[in-house]
Amino acid sequence: MGDRALGLRRGGASTSLRYRDVIPLGGMEQVEQVEVDQAPPGYHDDKDAVLKRLRRIEGQVRGLQRLVQEDKYCIDVLTQVAATTKSLQAVAMQLLEKHLDHCVREAMVAGGEVARDKVTEASQAIERLLRT
Amino acid sequence: MGDRALGLRRGGASTSLRYRDVIPLGGMEQVEQVEVDQAPPGYHDDKDAVLKRLRRIEGQVRGLQRLVQEDKYCIDVLTQVAATTKSLQAVAMQLLEKHLDHCVREAMVAGGEVARDKVTEASQAIERLLRT
Amino acid sequence: MGDRALGLRRGGASTSLRYRDVIPLGGMEQVEQVEVDQAPPGYHDDKDAVLKRLRRIEGQVRGLQRLVQEDKYCIDVLTQVAATTKSLQAVAMQLLEKHLDHCVREAMVAGGEVARDKVTEASQAIERLLRT
Amino acid sequence: MGDRALGLRRGGASTSLRYRDVIPLGGMEQVEQVEVDQAPPGYHDDKDAVLKRLRRIEGQVRGLQRLVQEDKYCIDVLTQVAATTKSLQAVAMQLLEKHLDHCVREAMVAGGEVARDKVTEASQAIERLLRT
Repeated sequence: MGDRALGLRRGGASTSLRYRDVIPLGGMEQVEQVEVDQAPPGYHDDKDAVLKRLRRIEGQVRGLQRLVQEDKYCIDVLTQVAATTKSLQAVAMQLLEKHLDHCVREAMVAGGEVARDKVTEASQAIERLLRT
Repeated sequence: MGDRALGLRRGGASTSLRYRDVIPLGGMEQVEQVEVDQAPPGYHDDKDAVLKRLRRIEGQVRGLQRLVQEDKYCIDVLTQVAATTKSLQAVAMQLLEKHLDHCVREAMVAGGEVARDKVTEASQAIERLLRT
Repeated sequence: MGDRALGLRRGGASTSLRYRDVIPLGGMEQVEQVEVDQAPPGYHDDKDAVLKRLRRIEGQVRGLQRLVQEDKYCIDVLTQVAATTKSLQAVAMQLLEKHLDHCVREAMVAGGEVARDKVTEASQAIERLLRT
Repeated sequence: MGDRALGLRRGGASTSLRYRDVIPLGGMEQVEQVEVDQAPPGYHDDKDAVLKRLRRIEGQVRGLQRLVQEDKYCIDVLTQVAATTKSLQAVAMQLLEKHLDHCVREAMVAGGEVARDKVTEASQAIERLLRT
C-alpha cells in the first residue's frame, strides 16, 4: 500500500466496512481511516461495463413483465428467466474476479489476519452464488 | 375457463404459440385461430402475483445499479446479486409448477404424441434452469 | 388406470408410498393394495442405463480420491468435481423426465387430488435440484 | 520465476503441474524440478478430511445404485441425488477456499503476471462450478 495505492484511493468514494475491523483498539490517525474508508471497490475500473450489464438486465426483467402481461407461453417466459439469470451470473463472475484481483490481493499483500478474513469472506460469497 | 376454452379443448388439445406451426398452409377458420392464440398460459391465475414478483426483481436490479454507482463494496454487491438470482429462480419455480399443473396436465389428459412432446419440452426448460 | 396399467404393475416390484395416501379410510381390497405398492418406478425401462451412469459416477468419485491422494493441483481436482456434479445432474434429469412421463402422467390421467399432489411433489424435487 | 520465487518454494510452498509449462526447453536442474513437482497442493493440511468426505460421497453414490436396483420411487432417488450433489459442492468449496488461502495467496505475494494468472484460473474454476 504505497503512494500509488493512496493516490488511487483518494480518487475513490466507497466504503469498505471490513477494513474498519482491523483498526487497532488504540485507534489510528483520522487521515488514514478516511483513506481506508474511501478505498474504491475492486470493480472500479469496470464500473461502466458493470452498470451497462445491469441496465441490460433491467431491460430483460422488463421484457419478462411484457411477456407475462401478454400471456405468452410458460416455456417462452421460462427461457427468458434462464437467460436473465445467466446474465446476472456473468455480472457476479465479473465482480468476483475483480474482487479477487484487487481487494483480496491487497489484503494478501498486507498479510496476516486481514488476508485470512478476506479469503473466508470471498468463499462465503462464492457459496451464496453456488446455492442459487 | 368458459365455453371458449372448452371449445378449444374439444378441438383436441392444448395451446401455446408453438401450435401455430402446425396450422396448415391453407389456414384454418379464423375463429379457431383466435381461440388457439388466446388460450391462457399455465400461470394465468397467478398472473398478478408473477407480475408483482417481476416488478420487485426490477427494483432489485435497479438497487444493484445504485450500489455500483455509489462504489459499494464488491461483497455487498455480490450478496444482492445472489438475492436477485434467488428471486428469479422463485419466479421460475412458480411458472414451472403452473405449467405442469395446467399445460402439461392438459396434454397428458389428451394423451399421445402431444403429451410426450410436452414432457420433453418441460424437461429441456428445467435443464436450462439447472444449468444457470 | 385401466387393465393395461394394472397389468403393468403386476410385472413390477417397486413401492410407491405416495399412493397409499389415497387409499380410502375404509380401506381397499388387499389385492389392489399390493398392485399399487408394486408399481414400477418411472425409470423402470431405463434402469440399466441409470445404473450404468451411477457406476461411472462412482468411478469418477474414486478418481477424485486418487487425485487428492496423489496431491494433485487444486484446480485439477476442482475441474473433476465439476465434471462429477455434471454427471449427477444428467442422472437427475433422466430420472425427472421419466418421472414426469410415467408417474406424473398416470396421476394426471387419474386426475383429482392425486394429480395435484404429484405436481407439488415434482416441483419440490426440482427446487431441491435447483438449490444445489 | 526468479530467485525469489524459488526461495518461496523452498520454504514449503505450493505450485502445480502448470508450472511445468514454464520450464525452459533446455530443462532445469533436477533438484528444482523435483521441488516443483512435489510442492503440496493448497488442501494439503485438509487432505484427510477431504478424502474422508470423498469416501462418504462414494458411499452415497453406491447408495443411489442400491435405490435404483431396488426400484425405489423416483422422487426418493432424486432427493438422494440432490444430497450427493450438495456433498460434492461442499468438497468443492473446501478445496476452493484452501486454494485461495494458499496457492493464490502465494502467487499474490510473489506478484506480477503469476498473480494475475492465478486469479483468472481460479475465476474459471468458480465459473465451472457455477454452471453445474
